[in-house]
Amino acid sequence: MGEKNLLKESYRKTKYQITGHGIRNVQVLKDALDQVDGEQESDLYGEGKVIEDFQEKMAEFLGKESAVFFPSGTMAQQIALRIWCDQKGINRVAYHPLCHLEIHEEEGLKKLHHIDSVLLADKNRVITLEDVVNMKEDVSCVLLELPQREIGGQLPDYETLVGISDFCRSKEIKLHLDGARLFEILPYYKKTAAEVCALFDSVYVSFYKGIGGVAGAILAGEKSFTNQSKVWKRRHGGDLISLNPYIISADTNFDERKDKMQKYFENAIELAELFNQCNRVKTIPEVPVSNMFHVHFDEPKERMDDLLAEIYRATNIGMTGNLRETGKNECFFEASTGDSYDSIPKDKLLELFSLLDERIKEMNFII
Amino acid sequence: MGEKNLLKESYRKTKYQITGHGIRNVQVLKDALDQVDGEQESDLYGEGKVIEDFQEKMAEFLGKESAVFFPSGTMAQQIALRIWCDQKGINRVAYHPLCHLEIHEEEGLKKLHHIDSVLLADKNRVITLEDVVNMKEDVSCVLLELPQREIGGQLPDYETLVGISDFCRSKEIKLHLDGARLFEILPYYKKTAAEVCALFDSVYVSFYKGIGGVAGAILAGEKSFTNQSKVWKRRHGGDLISLNPYIISADTNFDERKDKMQKYFENAIELAELFNQCNRVKTIPEVPVSNMFHVHFDEPKERMDDLLAEIYRATNIGMTGNLRETGKNECFFEASTGDSYDSIPKDKLLELFSLLDERIKEMNFII
Repeated sequence: MGEKNLLKESYRKTKYQITGHGIRNVQVLKDALDQVDGEQESDLYGEGKVIEDFQEKMAEFLGKESAVFFPSGTMAQQIALRIWCDQKGINRVAYHPLCHLEIHEEEGLKKLHHIDSVLLADKNRVITLEDVVNMKEDVSCVLLELPQREIGGQLPDYETLVGISDFCRSKEIKLHLDGARLFEILPYYKKTAAEVCALFDSVYVSFYKGIGGVAGAILAGEKSFTNQSKVWKRRHGGDLISLNPYIISADTNFDERKDKMQKYFENAIELAELFNQCNRVKTIPEVPVSNMFHVHFDEPKERMDDLLAEIYRATNIGMTGNLRETGKNECFFEASTGDSYDSIPKDKLLELFSLLDERIKEMNFII
Repeated sequence: MGEKNLLKESYRKTKYQITGHGIRNVQVLKDALDQVDGEQESDLYGEGKVIEDFQEKMAEFLGKESAVFFPSGTMAQQIALRIWCDQKGINRVAYHPLCHLEIHEEEGLKKLHHIDSVLLADKNRVITLEDVVNMKEDVSCVLLELPQREIGGQLPDYETLVGISDFCRSKEIKLHLDGARLFEILPYYKKTAAEVCALFDSVYVSFYKGIGGVAGAILAGEKSFTNQSKVWKRRHGGDLISLNPYIISADTNFDERKDKMQKYFENAIELAELFNQCNRVKTIPEVPVSNMFHVHFDEPKERMDDLLAEIYRATNIGMTGNLRETGKNECFFEASTGDSYDSIPKDKLLELFSLLDERIKEMNFII
């Protein structure tokens, strides 16, 4: 507890960070609002130019007929699955064991929508075509998360996606995309968003990961689907009188960052290589397929907390504020490259990694 | 349709408005953010100084042990009722036939929480002690909305509230306050918020009615209750990564307007009197008990749409952008006084009402 706070405090004081777009503070919203005329009218319960324009813009980008802005992905995705379950009359969906709905939403899908889940694949790998084909129970919808965040942002190859999509269509199972980090994987697949989304019946994307907005999500699909999602948005309490603080920040940051995803991806590969050159450190995946990966240390969390805090103070570069324990002698953190990475002078960055490697070696009497 | 838009367009072009705090635009948020340092850290999934400080401040103001910030009242109130129903094991609550949950939420309470409602009182009057005492079915919770918005913001007398509260406690029925406009009724009751809230087990208040913030709500009660509400907030998709755009605007506008409610109340009484002096116009209630009331015209909506649009153009003062039909020859609108009212020069205001009365008389050949 004390140690964790020490690491977080030490991280907050650093001038540079290897991940992200900088500290999440009020300035992010101020900067977005500075690009907008104060006289611009607010949206009103899902209507008005600001929300309708952004929804149309995103529908076009994603290659879908229609799109709806939601305050959160949690809300958008539960609703998508509910619509597909109601349509088919089967209250069961299939997804990865580490799906956001399974582990981060306090069982909202079960408690609010009475929808059961079938868990596909082992938790340490991505879903394969075989996992889907071999499902024993009938489901209304299969959800794929691209990339699979909780295992470092891994991806199936594109042929697997096409295979799963074809199979689901042949079996009248809807395919939903958890695209919280969809923009971030396009450089790896070398596809447009619309090309990837064409494989799915419904798509959710987020605006506060790689895009760096304040909050908010888009749910896209056919108009009959999004119309129903608006009714559920009202039921969930998500049809706020005005969502424009989130919409404006989503819109301006989307414009600013959507074309930087290639650079974030390349930087992630470079950064992962720097980690992998250190003793007792490895990344998952070894070579990133998006802007994210996990950094694993073969060291107890307490030792790494102290060691990282010391290195932050020495170099003025932060790596993470939050190490998570995976075993008695192992811990890890999630890294996502953003605007911050390129602001670090290269010699400072190399100094950071040589110090990290050196201190780990010292700690383990490696000569 | 064309007529309605004409009225709305005409209303939007007016310099002065008799109700509200002015047009809802981005400037409202910009003004709030101007009062905050850009370096202020964002809240993170319900934690952090900005959200915790505001929750504590509101808990104290409402005289409750604990308070939780929600993106919307729809979400907060469904959750409050769900907690009370789960606790008692009876999925039934009682409220007014025109309760927000019954008519504005697409049956979220039933579709998401499987909670049934018992409708108390005739829809044109407020709930009495007798209505509650004579309930035939057992319920987990009674919800009172103060003031009862859909009938012009009427209020029971304070003794009735005390009676209902005592009765519910004796029967182990929870009492929940829909206090969307709680701040607005304190001058009439001559009570503090904490005194009114002491009669209730759980309380919801809103920050974009009289307070004039962008959006957002507080749900307050005992800590065991609010802790459960946080879990449900996550399930609903309301535990956003950052709610600070709403919190900051709620907080700054609360400070700015909480002590103006007496003035809004007095202005509502004055304004209602001006309406009641006109032919074929009456307000409900005749004498307002908060900052709100309904203005009824004994005229067909189409005629009043044209007439009001004409008067707005002539006087540069708007009354409403939205008339609602109640019968073939009757229509009404909701009025809520705010900052705008006092900005209207008094002679202009009297000119508006003499023109309104004159034009209605002309239309009806009243000499």
